This record gives sequence, C-alpha cells and structure tokens, in this order.
Amino acid sequence: MAEPRVSLITLGSRDLEKSRRFYVDGFGWKPVFENDEIIFYQLNGLILSTFADTSLQADMARGELLRPGAFALAHNVRAESEVKALMNDLVAAGGRVLRPADAPPIGGLRGYVADPDDHAWEIAYNPAFSIDDDGNIVFGT
Amino acid sequence: MAEPRVSLITLGSRDLEKSRRFYVDGFGWKPVFENDEIIFYQLNGLILSTFADTSLQADMARGELLRPGAFALAHNVRAESEVKALMNDLVAAGGRVLRPADAPPIGGLRGYVADPDDHAWEIAYNPAFSIDDDGNIVFGT
Repeated sequence: MAEPRVSLITLGSRDLEKSRRFYVDGFGWKPVFENDEIIFYQLNGLILSTFADTSLQADMARGELLRPGAFALAHNVRAESEVKALMNDLVAAGGRVLRPADAPPIGGLRGYVADPDDHAWEIAYNPAFSIDDDGNIVFGT
Repeated sequence: MAEPRVSLITLGSRDLEKSRRFYVDGFGWKPVFENDEIIFYQLNGLILSTFADTSLQADMARGELLRPGAFALAHNVRAESEVKALMNDLVAAGGRVLRPADAPPIGGLRGYVADPDDHAWEIAYNPAFSIDDDGNIVFGT
C-alpha cells in the first residue's frame, strides 16, 4: 500500500520558452531550476515540471505523445473574482481559452485555459472546498 | 500573481471500474467520493480524480481526447526497495510497464507504469528529494 501522494507533475513541451512565459508571466510562478530541457516550479508539496517532449518521450520509453491529452489540472482560487482575472493573465501570457468562466453544476465559477502546449488548466472557485494557508485542499471541507 | 499550487489532477477514463482497480488495489488508495462518472482520491494537499472521458471532454469544451498524452505523474517512494514492489502491485492491478525500473542520470531508481487509461506514472526513489511526514517534497532538499 503506497502513501497517497503525487510528487511531480511533468508536462511535455514543444517550446519551453513559450511555456515558461505562460507559467512565469501568466501564473506568476518562479522556476526553482531550469536548463534548456526542463524547468521546475515548486507547488504545494509537489513539483511541476515542463520537459521537452522528446526528452519526456525518451524517459517514459514510449512513442509519439499526442494532444489534447485526456487530463486536466485545476488551480483553485480563494475568491470568485479571481477566476476571470487569472484567466485573463494566462491568455495574455500565451494561453488559449477552452471554456469561458461559467458556473458548474456544483456551484462556484470555473473556466478552462490551455497552456501553449495544449495542456488544460481549470481555474476554479469552488466554495465547497476550503484552501488552507499552505494552499492545500481536503475533499469536501 | 497566483499562489503556486495545483488543486486537482483529473485523469480521463474510458472504464472507471478498471481504473478504480488500479488505484484502489494497486496503489492502495481509498476513494473519498465516487459515482458512475467520477472517483476522487485525497492526496497530499490535492485531489486526484478519474472522470469519464466523455464527461471530461464536455467539461473542458474540447474535442476528442488522445492517448498517450504528453504528461506524466510521479509518485516518489521513501526507499529504493519500494520501487519495484509498487510497480509489481500496479501491474497486478491492471497497469502496464512502460519502462522497467533503472537508474536515471541523477541517481536513484525509477520506472514507468501506465494506468489502464494509458496515463503514465513514474515510480521513483530519488535520494536528492526528501519526503516529509505529510508526503510532501520541496525541490532539492
């Protein structure tokens, strides 16, 4: 039985400079390490990395990577007013709106923006989940 | 500027029952909520969900989702001996080895297993990153 955690999320990138602009200028996150092949960002207890597609493919020992992939990442914000503001920042930094912000069935507000590598980010205000001081959430609290 | 965090990781699934077996019997994780369309698992300060592909596609307002996607998730373990043991558990629960465990350039040990929906999990022992009691990691410490 493994402890319930994810340690890193690695996103394949076809153009690390464009990707960097999205995460650094759009989200406002600061790399903790970077070179020509990979960039790391420290998140809430886990690390996000953007890694050249060809390198990721070789590391995973698998064939061509396809887009759009069957996954999404969500970034929850603390106030409803932050949703559209952050989506605008992400678009200004090279993101593309997939779904403009609207209310999901559970309430709150959310929209989706694809990063320059076509990876989907949901930007959400979900009043059912509180966010602690460290940015962590626990289901249904 | 957004706080540096990811709140949810959503993985598209074509067969939630098969996916459930991989996460529950393979990783040993316990759903905190489930219905016919979605299953949630509480991880280290964020939530993992497996969501029917068609529902995820509709929620993101995008076209057909393709595999393999250009991303990987990593689960770091506390001891080198845990890498192969966990990979074996995941394969027994419906996973497929993409890359057998070997030493990456940075040292340690890691391999890749695809879940039943072809999402790649790296199972890694990385002596350069320590894991705290809550399962969190901080880059390079």
